[in-house]
Amino acid sequence: MEKDCLGVGLIGAGRIGRLHAQNLAHRIPQASLRALSDVNRKALESCAAELAVPLVTDDYRAVLDAPDVRAVAICSSTDTHSQIIEEAAAAGKHIFCEKPIDYDLARIDRALEAVREAGVMLQIGFNRRFDPSFRRVREVVAEGGIGQPHLLRITSRDPQPPPIEYVKVSGGIFLDMTIHDFDMARYLVDSEVDEVYALGGVLVDPAIGEAGDIDTAVITLRFANGAIGTIDNSRKASYGYDQRIEVFGSGGMVAAPNIPPYSTTLSDGSAVHGPLPLFFFLERYAHSYLAEMQEFVDSVRQGKAPSVGGEDGRIAVVMGYAARTSYRENRPVRLAEVAQR
Amino acid sequence: MEKDCLGVGLIGAGRIGRLHAQNLAHRIPQASLRALSDVNRKALESCAAELAVPLVTDDYRAVLDAPDVRAVAICSSTDTHSQIIEEAAAAGKHIFCEKPIDYDLARIDRALEAVREAGVMLQIGFNRRFDPSFRRVREVVAEGGIGQPHLLRITSRDPQPPPIEYVKVSGGIFLDMTIHDFDMARYLVDSEVDEVYALGGVLVDPAIGEAGDIDTAVITLRFANGAIGTIDNSRKASYGYDQRIEVFGSGGMVAAPNIPPYSTTLSDGSAVHGPLPLFFFLERYAHSYLAEMQEFVDSVRQGKAPSVGGEDGRIAVVMGYAARTSYRENRPVRLAEVAQR
Amino acid sequence: MEKDCLGVGLIGAGRIGRLHAQNLAHRIPQASLRALSDVNRKALESCAAELAVPLVTDDYRAVLDAPDVRAVAICSSTDTHSQIIEEAAAAGKHIFCEKPIDYDLARIDRALEAVREAGVMLQIGFNRRFDPSFRRVREVVAEGGIGQPHLLRITSRDPQPPPIEYVKVSGGIFLDMTIHDFDMARYLVDSEVDEVYALGGVLVDPAIGEAGDIDTAVITLRFANGAIGTIDNSRKASYGYDQRIEVFGSGGMVAAPNIPPYSTTLSDGSAVHGPLPLFFFLERYAHSYLAEMQEFVDSVRQGKAPSVGGEDGRIAVVMGYAARTSYRENRPVRLAEVAQR
Amino acid sequence: MEKDCLGVGLIGAGRIGRLHAQNLAHRIPQASLRALSDVNRKALESCAAELAVPLVTDDYRAVLDAPDVRAVAICSSTDTHSQIIEEAAAAGKHIFCEKPIDYDLARIDRALEAVREAGVMLQIGFNRRFDPSFRRVREVVAEGGIGQPHLLRITSRDPQPPPIEYVKVSGGIFLDMTIHDFDMARYLVDSEVDEVYALGGVLVDPAIGEAGDIDTAVITLRFANGAIGTIDNSRKASYGYDQRIEVFGSGGMVAAPNIPPYSTTLSDGSAVHGPLPLFFFLERYAHSYLAEMQEFVDSVRQGKAPSVGGEDGRIAVVMGYAARTSYRENRPVRLAEVAQR
Repeated sequence: MEKDCLGVGLIGAGRIGRLHAQNLAHRIPQASLRALSDVNRKALESCAAELAVPLVTDDYRAVLDAPDVRAVAICSSTDTHSQIIEEAAAAGKHIFCEKPIDYDLARIDRALEAVREAGVMLQIGFNRRFDPSFRRVREVVAEGGIGQPHLLRITSRDPQPPPIEYVKVSGGIFLDMTIHDFDMARYLVDSEVDEVYALGGVLVDPAIGEAGDIDTAVITLRFANGAIGTIDNSRKASYGYDQRIEVFGSGGMVAAPNIPPYSTTLSDGSAVHGPLPLFFFLERYAHSYLAEMQEFVDSVRQGKAPSVGGEDGRIAVVMGYAARTSYRENRPVRLAEVAQR
Repeated sequence: MEKDCLGVGLIGAGRIGRLHAQNLAHRIPQASLRALSDVNRKALESCAAELAVPLVTDDYRAVLDAPDVRAVAICSSTDTHSQIIEEAAAAGKHIFCEKPIDYDLARIDRALEAVREAGVMLQIGFNRRFDPSFRRVREVVAEGGIGQPHLLRITSRDPQPPPIEYVKVSGGIFLDMTIHDFDMARYLVDSEVDEVYALGGVLVDPAIGEAGDIDTAVITLRFANGAIGTIDNSRKASYGYDQRIEVFGSGGMVAAPNIPPYSTTLSDGSAVHGPLPLFFFLERYAHSYLAEMQEFVDSVRQGKAPSVGGEDGRIAVVMGYAARTSYRENRPVRLAEVAQR
Repeated sequence: MEKDCLGVGLIGAGRIGRLHAQNLAHRIPQASLRALSDVNRKALESCAAELAVPLVTDDYRAVLDAPDVRAVAICSSTDTHSQIIEEAAAAGKHIFCEKPIDYDLARIDRALEAVREAGVMLQIGFNRRFDPSFRRVREVVAEGGIGQPHLLRITSRDPQPPPIEYVKVSGGIFLDMTIHDFDMARYLVDSEVDEVYALGGVLVDPAIGEAGDIDTAVITLRFANGAIGTIDNSRKASYGYDQRIEVFGSGGMVAAPNIPPYSTTLSDGSAVHGPLPLFFFLERYAHSYLAEMQEFVDSVRQGKAPSVGGEDGRIAVVMGYAARTSYRENRPVRLAEVAQR
Repeated sequence: MEKDCLGVGLIGAGRIGRLHAQNLAHRIPQASLRALSDVNRKALESCAAELAVPLVTDDYRAVLDAPDVRAVAICSSTDTHSQIIEEAAAAGKHIFCEKPIDYDLARIDRALEAVREAGVMLQIGFNRRFDPSFRRVREVVAEGGIGQPHLLRITSRDPQPPPIEYVKVSGGIFLDMTIHDFDMARYLVDSEVDEVYALGGVLVDPAIGEAGDIDTAVITLRFANGAIGTIDNSRKASYGYDQRIEVFGSGGMVAAPNIPPYSTTLSDGSAVHGPLPLFFFLERYAHSYLAEMQEFVDSVRQGKAPSVGGEDGRIAVVMGYAARTSYRENRPVRLAEVAQR
């Protein structure tokens, strides 16, 4: 452990938590994973065995109490986020929290208030901002490479739907899946969204409809700066994880197509056959998960504000609510309708 | 001239009329261009000189009266279409008419009624249906290559706005520009559209706004079969004519990217530089203009119904009206609101 | 016919002759196709019927005698080229001649001498120089876009072998097929080739071997300016006509990949399936055939030297001989060995 | 440390050694890095500090003596390889050795003999075989996806030349750079090479010529199975690390183009600008370095022969010698000329 490494505690050792734990343990020299907790004893032990963590516990409060833990990464289930944020803030820990902060705006506001009062740092896990291709899109836009942004297009389709049990508690497609795209929209166009219009349906699996959700959606965004965005979502793209972005402006267009696991193509008598996109988020966004955690560690150590904070986390949830209302009432909905504190 | 060639008269020798005239004269062996008219004497003579047409006149009625003319191609200005259709039908000529049929639904209905009564054939100039790349999209969809269509995406951006004088009489972006995309949407998804929602703005040139139009638009389509479509339009793409289509379905996605004039790329210290798309519609859609006229000639000679007829022309105009209303009132508009006869 | 159009006579109305005839008749306004000859009466009449040519004859000498014919296009079989060139030159006609000029260097030299003495113009049908993608490669190289050329790579593979009867009289793969690539090599690198080394074999069809030829070859070129080139040929690419070029230099690389007939791709559970290249030379090189004839007509009318002349035709044949010797003796062969007059 | 992990010692903590050390320490759960040596004390300590290795020494013999080290990775300078292989074999350690084994065939033979006698396993670091794109090429060929291989093409160009001091001791371009391509050629075509012909020159930097080497080369390969291959090398591609492979066969073509660090493209008024390839081997081949070491560890633990062994290492050196002779004498050279033991 490097001298004056940042001691980090990780709460929630599920799929995404484990990934963050590996990054903290091995790939971020300025960090040291000091504590790990999960209510699921099996997940906890499997993760701990691999990573040689000093403190392993099923009680996240023990992590918050550990003196060599200066920062925590909250990767537990969404319904626990706001509570843990409040307690971590009270304990003076800097906080990385997976998205969404919460499904309830009032609870989000309480958590953000606790963070402000404690003067700790809070970074939200909108990892896609750190994807090299999307980051390059943002840079080009910010450098004026396309002039003024006019049109944004986000394609965001999963390779397969989550289990129905998950769908039932997911908060619905807009808060569970589109929330990433909402954040990207604001990030890439560098303007707030005033109004959304959402269309959707159950086209993939009737069971998703029976669970009260939809599986296919198109959301139109009206930005404050006059730009217009569209997001399209599907819970099932048969060809894999489809994650593409385009921004069109007065001076050009910047686009980030899909990324395959290899470049190899086969030409035969029927076609030129190319590779499908990287399978799912763990593969496609591997770089981005590492880069966001690296930024978190750097920001804490250097006392800088993170590039994606609590307010960003809140706005994406507000957009999700507006989209849900729009879908249900089949009308454009202004964010101001749902955003009030 | 091949024996039993189809004698065709062409009305309107402007840019697009001239292209059709060249195709009829040289590239469609089963047709013979027998007559040509234009109110603009200069355009008329320039076109006639090149093509050796027997009858050259500034009066389209002389074309309709010519006994060796069995079919006419109407390429004059939009405000003359419905009148000429009615007269051509009365003269027993088969009719190819450029889009749109008219800006007025009542006049469209009268023209279509005249066609029905005369028992002549009417084909509308939705040439993009004949573009090899888009035709291939349609074939893949029709063959079930992507399963059930769920999402459609049409990008349709011009390289530069038309002159302001044209904008003023164009009928507005939805009837002038999006009308092609409306037709493609129905054609590719093979379902009617129930409802549209249109967002737009003046982002390219304030003069377009002063002329009462917009220059940037996003239109969302709700199809009868549950699919959802988006069209995005801009009057000015700095990198050229951007014409792309994607259809996503339960079993895959079919996409038609842009087509450059050559394949050459340059890799240097800064990037891999590839060619821009074909410059504008005369280049990009050259094949489609020839193919649609070939189909028209074949259909007339063989007594078949054309694949794109008067009703197709009417529906696209209805969609344009619905989009305009939606844009003005910022709400989704059902086609049934504006479609009644 | 435009005033002071160039009257052209065409000799040889086979596949390629017919294409040139159509271009001269319809697509080059500055030319008028005045005479047509072929020893094959059927091909002749079929071609003449379509194009309304004033003089139609089975005797090419009648074409050479026609007073309104100022230039001739020689598209007859290779063994007649040099003889017709000599007679056409003697008759004071400007000459476009398909490649190769002849298989015999001495006869080539006599023909070129006749041309020089008569002071007429001679253009050789190396159409690929006029392909938009390859032309762009040349422009980039000439503009210094890649700095000094170091490496050249030409891929040139046919979709299927010609009939065995043709193979027997073709002059062998190096003179029949590679000859185009030899010309492109000189054209693109803008340097002469000093030495070649050729490897080859019969991998496609044993019947080609029995006919005394090979069907697969790799030719290495040592240029006078130090650059190194490779050409690879196959008589059969199962995925279609493979025509690609790359030039690598001190400052970059310019590449011209294959060109498909449409842009459409299909993504499904197995791959992203893209279109195969344009099927064969009539499709792939349609633009280049028109452009070379346009240049010929322009050059004659304006008294300019053509960009690809008799000496270019001769050198490509010399390269073919050198490659054949290299292949047979399995050693590098200098062009100087075979090039002497 | 997992129970019955493979204890590995690493000799040589330079750039590539350090990469292997990180992989062994963090990314291969079945391995444990137990010992590390380097004659350069500074490199050694810097690497050791990061990885928490129990035994750190400047004497590789201490690594060979360590009882918990069952396998060694030899990443020291080439002139030490064969000596360390012999000693490691004598110590009963399994061996991973970076390429080339040695520049001297007799020493290679002695080392391979020592390995055989000791009955240990030897894997050579031809990492490119493990690159996902090239591996997929090999799979397609092995599955018969392209039928019988006819033509192979390897493009292998570095972004910048190594320091002149390195060039002087590198063994020359054929043994230092092309050696990887020689191995890939055999691997992908699955046939031995009978004969090579090499052309080359000093086009990049005269200093390389003064150091007795060349910087640009084209090598033609005649395979035993009739296929023909070409390799082109340059020490300096201004657009970055150019690593591409194509195999063409009777039934199709499989190709692996370059891989960029992100997918983002910018279209503006001048071109569509795409990303350059991954910068150099540490970026481009990161996956392959991990995968080859994973195979080594798996093979040792499971008692399997590695897929790339000592004989593969020897043959690539023989090909390098043949190419050097061919270049110097400007004639095709059979491997049999230089391969005898």
